[in-house]
Parts: sequence; C-alpha cells; structure tokens
Amino acid sequence: MALWPKLDDAQASPQARAVFDDIRASRNTDYVNDIWRVLANDPALLERTWQQVKTVMRPGALDALTKELIYVAISMTNDCEYCVTTHTGAARAKGMTEEQFGELLAVVGLANQLNALVAGTRVEVDQRYRG
Amino acid sequence: MALWPKLDDAQASPQARAVFDDIRASRNTDYVNDIWRVLANDPALLERTWQQVKTVMRPGALDALTKELIYVAISMTNDCEYCVTTHTGAARAKGMTEEQFGELLAVVGLANQLNALVAGTRVEVDQRYRG
Amino acid sequence: MALWPKLDDAQASPQARAVFDDIRASRNTDYVNDIWRVLANDPALLERTWQQVKTVMRPGALDALTKELIYVAISMTNDCEYCVTTHTGAARAKGMTEEQFGELLAVVGLANQLNALVAGTRVEVDQRYRG
Amino acid sequence: MALWPKLDDAQASPQARAVFDDIRASRNTDYVNDIWRVLANDPALLERTWQQVKTVMRPGALDALTKELIYVAISMTNDCEYCVTTHTGAARAKGMTEEQFGELLAVVGLANQLNALVAGTRVEVDQRYRG
Amino acid sequence: MALWPKLDDAQASPQARAVFDDIRASRNTDYVNDIWRVLANDPALLERTWQQVKTVMRPGALDALTKELIYVAISMTNDCEYCVTTHTGAARAKGMTEEQFGELLAVVGLANQLNALVAGTRVEVDQRYRG
Amino acid sequence: MALWPKLDDAQASPQARAVFDDIRASRNTDYVNDIWRVLANDPALLERTWQQVKTVMRPGALDALTKELIYVAISMTNDCEYCVTTHTGAARAKGMTEEQFGELLAVVGLANQLNALVAGTRVEVDQRYRG
Repeated sequence: MALWPKLDDAQASPQARAVFDDIRASRNTDYVNDIWRVLANDPALLERTWQQVKTVMRPGALDALTKELIYVAISMTNDCEYCVTTHTGAARAKGMTEEQFGELLAVVGLANQLNALVAGTRVEVDQRYRG
Repeated sequence: MALWPKLDDAQASPQARAVFDDIRASRNTDYVNDIWRVLANDPALLERTWQQVKTVMRPGALDALTKELIYVAISMTNDCEYCVTTHTGAARAKGMTEEQFGELLAVVGLANQLNALVAGTRVEVDQRYRG
Repeated sequence: MALWPKLDDAQASPQARAVFDDIRASRNTDYVNDIWRVLANDPALLERTWQQVKTVMRPGALDALTKELIYVAISMTNDCEYCVTTHTGAARAKGMTEEQFGELLAVVGLANQLNALVAGTRVEVDQRYRG
Repeated sequence: MALWPKLDDAQASPQARAVFDDIRASRNTDYVNDIWRVLANDPALLERTWQQVKTVMRPGALDALTKELIYVAISMTNDCEYCVTTHTGAARAKGMTEEQFGELLAVVGLANQLNALVAGTRVEVDQRYRG
Repeated sequence: MALWPKLDDAQASPQARAVFDDIRASRNTDYVNDIWRVLANDPALLERTWQQVKTVMRPGALDALTKELIYVAISMTNDCEYCVTTHTGAARAKGMTEEQFGELLAVVGLANQLNALVAGTRVEVDQRYRG
Repeated sequence: MALWPKLDDAQASPQARAVFDDIRASRNTDYVNDIWRVLANDPALLERTWQQVKTVMRPGALDALTKELIYVAISMTNDCEYCVTTHTGAARAKGMTEEQFGELLAVVGLANQLNALVAGTRVEVDQRYRG
C-alpha cells in the first residue's frame, strides 16, 4: 500500500500536472507511471526528481540502453521490485534481448558475489592501484 | 588487513598456480591481482571463482565494456572499494572515457535515490506491468 | 507468510503475555502489533526486543517524533515495508504533517544518492576532519 | 584514493568555480569540502548535486538539525565514512549535543536490528495498516 | 511477477532438463524449485548456478545444517523473501528446531545492530588485530 | 577516526567501568575491545549493548562457534571491517579451521549471488511454501 494516494490529473496541482504533461511529451506516450502520481503529493519533489531523471537518462556519452542496464543492475542489487520491473520494461522497449537480460543477470550475480568475497577476506587494494 | 596472506607463486599450490597461469594467459599480462593471491588459500574456491569471472565477463550479447560498467555500478552501490577501484581501472583500459565515467556516476546516484524514494513511498508496481 | 504463527493472548506463554500487557499499558491502546505476536514464539527474544524499543524510543535528548523520523528513514533505506508502514503511522500519530513527510522523503533520497556518489568517486575524508 | 583528482579553484572550469563560490556564500565559509572538488571533474553533475543539497537541506517543515540527524542516520546505515564524518560535524555545528548523538546511535542500532528481525520472521503488515 | 516465465520440463531445453534431473537426483525429490524453472530461460546460467550450489552447500568442513543457517542469516540481512522462506524450509528439513531458529534470529538482529553501531561510531580496528 | 574518544578505565564513568569489568570476567581476559571503550561515552548504551551481546552469543540451542560463524557472515555481507576482523578472530579462538573459513566464504559468496539473482528475476515464493 502506497503511503500517499496516486493523484490523477484532476487531483494534481498545476505544478504537478505540468510535470505529467512533460513526461507524456518526453516519452511520447499518454501513460504516466504510478511513481510520478504518488510523488505528485509533493509537487516540488516531483518536479526536481523528474528533471533529474530526464537529464541523467537521456543519451550522452553512454547510450540510452546502457544507462537502463546500469539502472536495472543497481535496482536488482537493492532489491527494488518496482524499479527492476519498470526499468526492465524500459530496457526491453529500447531493444534489450532476452540473451542480454541473461548476461545482465549473470554480471549482477557475479559482482554481488565478488563484492562479498572481497568484504569477507578484507583484501586491500593492490599497491599498483593506489596513488 | 587481509584475513588470509597473499600467496606468491612459490607459496601457492599447483592447483592455485595453474589458475594464476590462466589469469596471465587470459589477460595477456604478468600481473595477478591480489584478490586471486588471497583466494589461493582455498584453491578450489579460487578456481571456481576465476572460472565464473572468465565466463561471465567475456564479450557476448553484451560487450566487455558494458559488462565492466555494470560491474562497477554494483560495486559502487555496495561500497566495495577494492572492486570499484580495480574494475574502474579495467573499464578505462577497455576504453571508458572520463565523460562516460561521469555519466555512470550520475546514473548510480540517480538509481540509488529513486530506489529509496520507491521504498519510502511504498508505491506498488503499476497494474500494466503485472502479469 | 510469516515463518512463525502470530500468537493471540491465549496461545502466548505467561512471559509473552506480560509483554503484551506492558505494550498495551505503555502505548495506551488495546492493540498489539503483529511483529510482537510473531516474536512471542521466543518469549525471551520478545521481551529483550520490547524492552529495548521502549527504552530507546522514549523522549530524551531527542523528542519522540524526531526518533520516529530517524527510524522511518533507516527503514526506507533498508526497504523494510513493515517498518516503514507502521512507523510512518506512528510518526503521523505523533504529529508528522504531510509536508514533513515530503521533506523526509527528499532527505532520504538525497542521502542515498550522495552516499553512492561518495562510494563511486572514492573521495577520502577531508584532512580537516581527521584526528 | 579518489578516482578523480580534487580540483582547486584554478583547475576548475568556470561552471564549477561558480558552484564553489555559491557553496562559500551559502555556508558563510571559505572552505569547500573535498567531495565538491572531486565532483568538479564533471561540472554539470557538480552543479545539479549541489543545487539539490542546497534545496533539500535548508530549513522548511523540518528544521536544519533534524535533517542533518536523518542524513547521518542513513549514512551510518549505508556505512559511508565520508558522509557520517562530515555530516556529524555539520550536526554538531548546528547544535547537536553528545547526549543527542548517543540517542541517535541507539535509534540507528535499534532500527537496523528490527528491520532484520522483520526480514527474518517475514511478518506481514498488520491488516489495520493496509488500504 | 517473475520477469521470465517458469519453464516446465516440456518447455525447457535439453541442457536445462538435464539440470532439473540432477536436482531431482541430488535432492532425492520430484520437486524442482521455481527459481530453477525461471533460470532455465538461460540454460548456461542455470547450469553454472546449480553446479555452484551443489558444490558449496554439500557437507564438508562445515556440516549441511550450519551452511543452511549461514545462508538464511545472509538472506535475512538482504531481506530476500524467496531465499529466507525456502532455505528456512531446508534448514528445518535438516533438523533445525524452533529454539535454534529463535537463536538464529537473535544473532541476526544483534549483528545487524552492532554493524550499524560500528559504522556510526567509526571505531577503528584495534591495534592488536592489525598486521 | 572514531567520532568519540576511546575511554580508558580512569576516564570511564563507574557504570561504564563496571561493564569493562564484566567483559573481562566473562571473557577471562584483561583486554577490552575498542568498540566498548568508544561506546563508554554513553554508559547506558554501552551497558544495554553488552548485556545483549552476552545473552545472545552464549552457547544455547546453537553452540558458540556456530553463532560466531553466523555473526561473521552477516558482517561480511554488510562489509563491516571491524566486525569481520574481530569476530573472525573470535571464531578462530573458538576452533574455526582455515578450511572452515574457506567454506564460510564460499557460502557467503553464494548466498549474496543467489539473493541478487532472485531479486533480479523477481521469482515469487513457490506455491508450496505459502501458507
């Protein structure tokens, strides 16, 4: 159960509705994900968060799919169901194949395993990697 | 302080030394990272771990650099100094630019922020993403 | 599905029932949260845990609402649905406004983002903050 | 070892230097923390991050000290040395007493313990807290 | 909702079906847990993961129950519902009593609390434990 | 750098000194670990924490070594250097062999990997494990 209600367009403040409109225009869709409708209960938080998503996730030195894969990998590591589900959907929409999803899972499993082995052995950074 | 000593080639068992040799051959370098020299205290663990790294990280449906970026992003999320440092080095060796590193950081910061906002609002997965 | 059944007053041992009674008296309510009914399967664990909650969460140098906000922020960071839901309820009961909840979310998102950026850049503690 | 060098004012780009100046003006100090000097290697990331910190951490429905305490509690939970150290310093500068710091620690320990007990017993949210 | 369908024996590839058969033979049961049926969408990932589980979890210098208890404790700490539920089942099947489960919970709660207190105070490793 | 000074016996309050004495008596040693000397800055927190450690870690339905192994596994998962180092020392003192430490590491790596794969595939708990 969300701790804030999802606001539809009629319930949202003008500031929040403007963000909904920008999401629709930027993503070329009529659909606004529920996280935005929940964050609309604090319009300033909604607007700052959306601006950051829009800026960070657009293609740049890294392409849009690579950014989605990184986002999904972090969400898997943090066990965020909402984030894994919606961003896996976004990655598929941007061309991720099932074979790539399998390799993504394999890297996520491996890195979490090795992070734990490093934490467990307390190995220190090699001399050659220190300043 | 590592909880196991780093074993040099003379101290390592034949099974562990064979892994060191395979690391050198696979990476085309004389250098064996300290994590492997520490894991060599349990040669079977060393061999299984190395085989998995070698299999998972080689180019496939995802290229080698994309896999490194994903690996680094997870290690940043888990705050693994050893892993972030060595795999950022590997990513740079595979062509990561400083501009790409900046965008990687931005996605890592964003995803960890959004994962927390989702956890904080308890928003549920949109109906359209459920089976 | 809880791994232990919730024990009602009749099923609980005398030691566990005494804790239920103390919870009711301390909180001035008839209701005992389900976590206590589950922990009642190990009465000594129940009693130790409740005593600690009672001692730590009572107003002291920090007031009761501030303690709830801190508790909720940690539970959001750990993605504990039960804890976020029940302690947000407690915070509202102690006077938290929706505007304060929005600012709490904003700090939780920010801190998790900055923690990740610090982990990602490996910046060291400024010389002036070291002993 | 930071993965990016700390940039002094002469090395920073005009965009980054403007952020340094705004930090100095906002905090009424000549000192710019090292995290900003490291992030200055990506001036746009630096500027977005600083604007968010400035907006979120200023007094609002929650006062500045309460926000710092929440920030520190999250950083303790994520084990971010840099963040715990610098923001504990900030909290002390804003009036946190040692007695309050002790109570903060107690809540942080308690919440992390209870989060784990909830995760371990798999207790579900009480019926009365569901929508 | 799983992001990959559960494959029954008829849907699985020959490589995946061979793993299912090995799971049945190794565990002396007809039942194959859903995680394996989901991982079967990437047969190589399935096979590597199962081989590792089989090798690591078999009795050795540590007995099978102790390994399950350690596995459950980690899964509680990471809040993995699937893992806590299935491996608590496995631990009970290997003889874990309810009293032992209660003590496991107590250690899990304690260690997570102390880990947070150490992170919060930034206490350094005692001189006598350093190399 | 610890955020509180380590208090020696002369600096500690009578309540804290009594805890130091109980640690010495219970562990049959003159040495008091630094975490206790730091927590002594809040004598009530010190006393509650020590009482809990003493109660939870003593042999019961689980023996003392098994409890240490579980404690170490959690501390590895949370990447707590202080906790891994000191409790690995305690486990060795209670008889843990290097072969057992290797198997502990293997289970820690495996469980963290599988927890991530479960989070990544979003597999749901098997019908047979639900109530």
